[in-house]
Amino acid sequence: MINFDEAYNKVMQYTLDLGMESVELLSCNGRILAEHILADRDFPPFNRATKDGIAIANAAIKRGFTSFKIEAVISAGMPQQKLSDTNNCVEIMTGAVVPENADTVIMYEHLEIKDGIATLRNQVTKGQDIHRKGSDVSSGTVLLDKNLRIGAAEIGVLASVGKSEVMVKKSPKVCVISTGNELVEVAANPLPHQIRKSNTLSLVAALQKQQIAAERIHLKDDKASIKKELTPILKTYDVVILSGGVSKGKFDFIPEVMESLDVKKVFHSVAQRPGKPFWFGIQEAQKTVVFSFPGNPVSTFANYHIYFLPWLSKSLALALNERQVLLSESIEVKPSLTRFIQVKLENKKGVLWATLVRENGSGDLTSLAHSDGFICLRPRELAYEKSEPVAFISTKS
Amino acid sequence: MINFDEAYNKVMQYTLDLGMESVELLSCNGRILAEHILADRDFPPFNRATKDGIAIANAAIKRGFTSFKIEAVISAGMPQQKLSDTNNCVEIMTGAVVPENADTVIMYEHLEIKDGIATLRNQVTKGQDIHRKGSDVSSGTVLLDKNLRIGAAEIGVLASVGKSEVMVKKSPKVCVISTGNELVEVAANPLPHQIRKSNTLSLVAALQKQQIAAERIHLKDDKASIKKELTPILKTYDVVILSGGVSKGKFDFIPEVMESLDVKKVFHSVAQRPGKPFWFGIQEAQKTVVFSFPGNPVSTFANYHIYFLPWLSKSLALALNERQVLLSESIEVKPSLTRFIQVKLENKKGVLWATLVRENGSGDLTSLAHSDGFICLRPRELAYEKSEPVAFISTKS
Repeated sequence: MINFDEAYNKVMQYTLDLGMESVELLSCNGRILAEHILADRDFPPFNRATKDGIAIANAAIKRGFTSFKIEAVISAGMPQQKLSDTNNCVEIMTGAVVPENADTVIMYEHLEIKDGIATLRNQVTKGQDIHRKGSDVSSGTVLLDKNLRIGAAEIGVLASVGKSEVMVKKSPKVCVISTGNELVEVAANPLPHQIRKSNTLSLVAALQKQQIAAERIHLKDDKASIKKELTPILKTYDVVILSGGVSKGKFDFIPEVMESLDVKKVFHSVAQRPGKPFWFGIQEAQKTVVFSFPGNPVSTFANYHIYFLPWLSKSLALALNERQVLLSESIEVKPSLTRFIQVKLENKKGVLWATLVRENGSGDLTSLAHSDGFICLRPRELAYEKSEPVAFISTKS
Repeated sequence: MINFDEAYNKVMQYTLDLGMESVELLSCNGRILAEHILADRDFPPFNRATKDGIAIANAAIKRGFTSFKIEAVISAGMPQQKLSDTNNCVEIMTGAVVPENADTVIMYEHLEIKDGIATLRNQVTKGQDIHRKGSDVSSGTVLLDKNLRIGAAEIGVLASVGKSEVMVKKSPKVCVISTGNELVEVAANPLPHQIRKSNTLSLVAALQKQQIAAERIHLKDDKASIKKELTPILKTYDVVILSGGVSKGKFDFIPEVMESLDVKKVFHSVAQRPGKPFWFGIQEAQKTVVFSFPGNPVSTFANYHIYFLPWLSKSLALALNERQVLLSESIEVKPSLTRFIQVKLENKKGVLWATLVRENGSGDLTSLAHSDGFICLRPRELAYEKSEPVAFISTKS
């Protein structure tokens, strides 16, 4: 048995480099950008009117003019036009190219327009209300660094520079496996001694949020068939996540079968609650990582968030941010175990307060739905105090 | 022009009741639950062993026995067995049904087993290591209330009670429309006076995160064709989100065309920055809600999060939670405008600190990618102070 920090660090030593792939722009939402994104031209690409009104040559004001004959109307989407007489003006719309010979825009609210003549009602500053070519960014500027998660804002930036296809990190191919002869399908009507599968559905749903479409497989508690079925799975997938079969029971064949398939045990059992009988291994030749979690719902769910998600983030080169929250009550801990305790968060004036969620042992699925995540309390002699900041692992976002 | 709170409250008066639909379990991830979920039977459904070891009748210990002949091995998934001689024991695995006549489980770690006889090494308490039938929940208990967002934990609960199909709130049918003759497709090579579409791609990506597959349409700045194209759109969709065409320009036809199509203007223009020329209307007969946002990227993006997302949450009967953050610097505001300012958040010991993100006007798309959201500063005479809590609108989660 090793302690939590040792286990965590060992898991993080076995991250995978999964490579990258090109994906259509709107399909890369939620994925991890794998290339630096540069401005392909100046932005704005031209001197752009930012108000609806008129464009003039400021020199005309210097020459004493305050009324301007309207030569034309220029709208967004028209190629650049020319102010032919610099004592005149053009009407111009937001987004349009400021015409040759003009250098100042005046909005309608500051004008009087009558019989084709625009007359100033306010002071004018040379260059006003023009968003100048290249003033946001000049061509070649890095707009987005690689290794960030793509969301709606990033998709806007990618669109603006013409990335209809984007290089993103490949997601791992994940197989989620349930074990246990007592398990039946969700749609089944279970006999009194049976229960429905729930852990693997919960895991598949959690992986969907990571843009991973996992395969879901069930194995019967039979050594020969487990070995037969696992053989091709270890070859096909980057990650195998199992739930159940790793305790000390006579039908907990997973560790033994894994070792017979050359999956090297990195550790088995961590001084933590819940989630203690966690078995973690690696098939070096096939570069397959095996997370074998204890079968209780809270244990599986906790270990997925404690170990798998940071492993995934690091494999995708995403930064890992520790979040902290304040305890709303003091908590005694044992000096030998790291505790992960379900909490509900409340934002009170910008401060995140964690309130413990009552749970009924590691079989209590429902408590997970009422929690925002787990606080992590490492073992120590002294109690954790009310208002003390502690590490928080989110299970909701 | 109305102020922000008036505008917000008016938008929230026009929420829609979209009804519900039945969806396959793994497709309901991220959707809103539309039914109360009850336990369909006791959980656990039987007296369940929580350790690997033996099951005995505690009365045998009372009768002086400390060694027990092993009658059988019982694994999870077997129907309930019977301890035929109550001075004997059975080996039992985690998850298995405790047999008739047995009432106590003792784990292997507290036993010595030799030649088919298990001998106690520790004190035993009657009933230990049994997760009793119905102790988590009894049949008929409400496990999940309706009107919550379904995530991985909820899918686990739904699976455990056999919900292979789940009633969820229907999502609105949304059409996202760009306007402006200067806009070209993302894959196009724009001429000097053209720019690529980005707002509608960003909106579609944001809606994907809400499990809404929006339609994306472009309208040329031409009154007759806008009217012709909008007519069937208003009939088909619950929500129309437009970007552009609502300022004071000669080609900003949207308000006029909307009114000609019996879309009642609720308001046009809000005393806020960015996002001021926001036009909001409702087609009462067709129950279509129209959000017509100004075309600048920051304005569209801000107003989507400020108005549309709360409107969507309320339409789906989700609770609206105001989040607050602390200012890391003082900010002067004008007494007439509500400001929405991009910030980056930092969690320092459980306290959320907001640092302003430099932006270059409402055309600066890239700043949005570097922000976590907007702080909302209502107009007031006094400056906002450093460390003051202010409302925060997330754009990342």
